Formats: sequence, C-alpha cells, structure tokens
Amino acid sequence: MFISFEGIDGSGKSTQARVLAESLRARGLDVVLTREPGGSPGAEEIRRLVLEGDPDRWSAQTEILLFTAARRDHLERVIEPALAAGKVVICDRFADSTRMYQGLSRGDLRALVDQLHSLMIAREPDLTILIDIDPAVGLARAKGRQGSEERFEDFGLGLQQKMRAGFLDLAREFAPRFAVIDGARTSEIIAQDVLETALAKL
Amino acid sequence: MFISFEGIDGSGKSTQARVLAESLRARGLDVVLTREPGGSPGAEEIRRLVLEGDPDRWSAQTEILLFTAARRDHLERVIEPALAAGKVVICDRFADSTRMYQGLSRGDLRALVDQLHSLMIAREPDLTILIDIDPAVGLARAKGRQGSEERFEDFGLGLQQKMRAGFLDLAREFAPRFAVIDGARTSEIIAQDVLETALAKL
Repeated sequence: MFISFEGIDGSGKSTQARVLAESLRARGLDVVLTREPGGSPGAEEIRRLVLEGDPDRWSAQTEILLFTAARRDHLERVIEPALAAGKVVICDRFADSTRMYQGLSRGDLRALVDQLHSLMIAREPDLTILIDIDPAVGLARAKGRQGSEERFEDFGLGLQQKMRAGFLDLAREFAPRFAVIDGARTSEIIAQDVLETALAKL
Repeated sequence: MFISFEGIDGSGKSTQARVLAESLRARGLDVVLTREPGGSPGAEEIRRLVLEGDPDRWSAQTEILLFTAARRDHLERVIEPALAAGKVVICDRFADSTRMYQGLSRGDLRALVDQLHSLMIAREPDLTILIDIDPAVGLARAKGRQGSEERFEDFGLGLQQKMRAGFLDLAREFAPRFAVIDGARTSEIIAQDVLETALAKL
C-alpha cells in the first residue's frame, strides 16, 4: 500500500503524514514514512541542488528532469523495496506535486511532466490524500517557518491559489485514488478523517 | 555551426577539439569550446554528482536523467545562445556519448535514451567528428591520466571494444552528420584531417 500526501504549502500534510504513520504503526503495521523531493540519500542530494541557491538557476525543463531523477532514485531505493516487503509507504508529496509545481507554475508544462512520468516513473500511489486548505491560511503558516528552502513559498498568494485549484482539478482527474480532506478543522479531527480513509483503503 | 567530438576514452578527441578551436579562431571565427557532461555552471554541478563518489550509487535510468538534465542546462545556457549569436560551438562529447555509455554499457537502454532525448533535447550537432582508435591504445592512454573521475575507464577493455563498435554503428546510423577520423596517426595529421572536414562543412 502506497499512500501519498499532497497539498499546498502550509496545508498541514507533513504533520498529517507523520500522525498517520504513527497511528498505523500503533495498529501493528510496518510503515515507511518518506518525502519528496528527496527520500533517499541520492535524491536528497538532488533536492539540495534544486532547492538551494538562486531560484532562477534552473529552467523549468531542467528542474523537471532533476526532480524526475530524484523520484526515480527514491522509487528504486526506498519505495519499491518497501512495498515488495509488504510495508505501507507514506510519502509526503509525490508525482502530483510535480504535475502542479513544475507543470503549472512556470508555464503550461503539464504535458511534458506527464510524458516524462510515463517514460521514467510509471507508478502512482494507491491512495493520495489531498489536504485542502484556504491558500491565505497555508501561506501564513508556510511563511512562519524558518529554512533555506524558500523556493516555492516565495511565489506568493497568487501561486498558492492557482495550486489549490490545480490540486482539486487533479483530484477529479484521478478520482479513484484521491481523497480530499478538509484541512480547515482541528489537527485531531483531520487526523481521524485521514486514518479512517486509509483504513478503508487497506 | 555546432560540432561535437566523440570517441572512446583515450581517443584523443579532447585534444583534437581544442586544436580545432584554435585553428578556427586563427581563421577569425568566433568559437566556443565546451564539453559534456558539464559545460555550464549548473551542468558541472550535476556532473560532479554523477561522476564522483560510488559508481554504483545511481541506477542506469537515474544516471540517464541526470545527464539529460545537465545537457538541457548546457544547451539552454551555453550552446543555443552561442549558436544564436553566430558562433561556432565545439563540444567534447554530446548526446552520442549518452547513446553509447548509458544506452549500451549497463543493459540495452538505447530506446529509453532516444525517447528522453526526443522529449527533452531534440537537437543534434551539424557535424560529429568520431576519432576512431584501437580500444587497447585508448585504454592505456586513459589509464595514464590522473583524476577522481575514473567512472567509465574502470569498466575495462571489454567495454572499450563494445563502445568502439557502437560508435562506428552510430556513425552509420547518423551518416550525414558523422565524419570518422582515423586516430591511429600522429596528432598533427589527425588535426589537419579534422580541420579540413570542419572547413568543408562550414
């Protein structure tokens, strides 16, 4: 079982991914909690190459190639072996984030992202949990965090609104594997909703 | 005019690329001499990621993605702007090296290399000079060099023989743009042959 979490920055998806991992472990399941971009030693190196330094130093196309290289490594080294061993894999962001952030944010490159995905990745999660939240709330939360990886948050509210709408479109496009969770409630209620969704799929 | 140099390790192609650049400059042409993998600041960073460290840390597929990312950056930042400005670009290795080293050396991935090239690069040199040499001679020369990038040379004579045959096949496949130059002669005679070939194309 391969579960991904998606959502705009500040949606709370990383917290929810962690809480779900703990809840499933408490039920005796063997869970691997991971994230993208990154998630394997090689992919983390590629992540640093993309997210640190001047945000304009890579074109959108080069960035898509680098994220796909990172995903391929992560898939081969972490996700596929864990799934083959019967573990549950929970991943904070996966290919849907590339469809949004690289496919939409710097021109319409969605077709290119999809072609590259078909050629080099060709794997979707069994369940994708989209934590849906007001873009202004998400942006305020994301801005409150520290860190050198300010790459996407810096693009502002306009981008966040576009990304939220894009994620909701994606949930309709890939409806069978998507669950849209209302992220405007308390963390505990959201976590309960996420857990029930995951257990129903398991 | 975009000229690439190809050949197995130790074929003398880097020397010949440099000599051709000097000869064309002496004739008043504006020449950009560059190399792959690398050739632009971003691509050089990706080069280090691939060629340094444990040779087995990337799968063949991830390596193809990383080299394609480096090539895309090099093309956008160095090659295309130089060609647009009317300069001659001489590049030590280009996509043909990926067709050989990534396409042949670790399983038959040539189709994947070609699909990725069509999708993300879609550009061939106007002239490709293949310096053809006995693999044993090439290997001895390559082994005589120092450096931390021993990645491909370490694969030994069997690989060098396979690569030589592969490059000659490639020269037939892309016959209109390929010139095969006998690399078993003195450096001066080879340089003269290379210069005449380039001038005929110009």
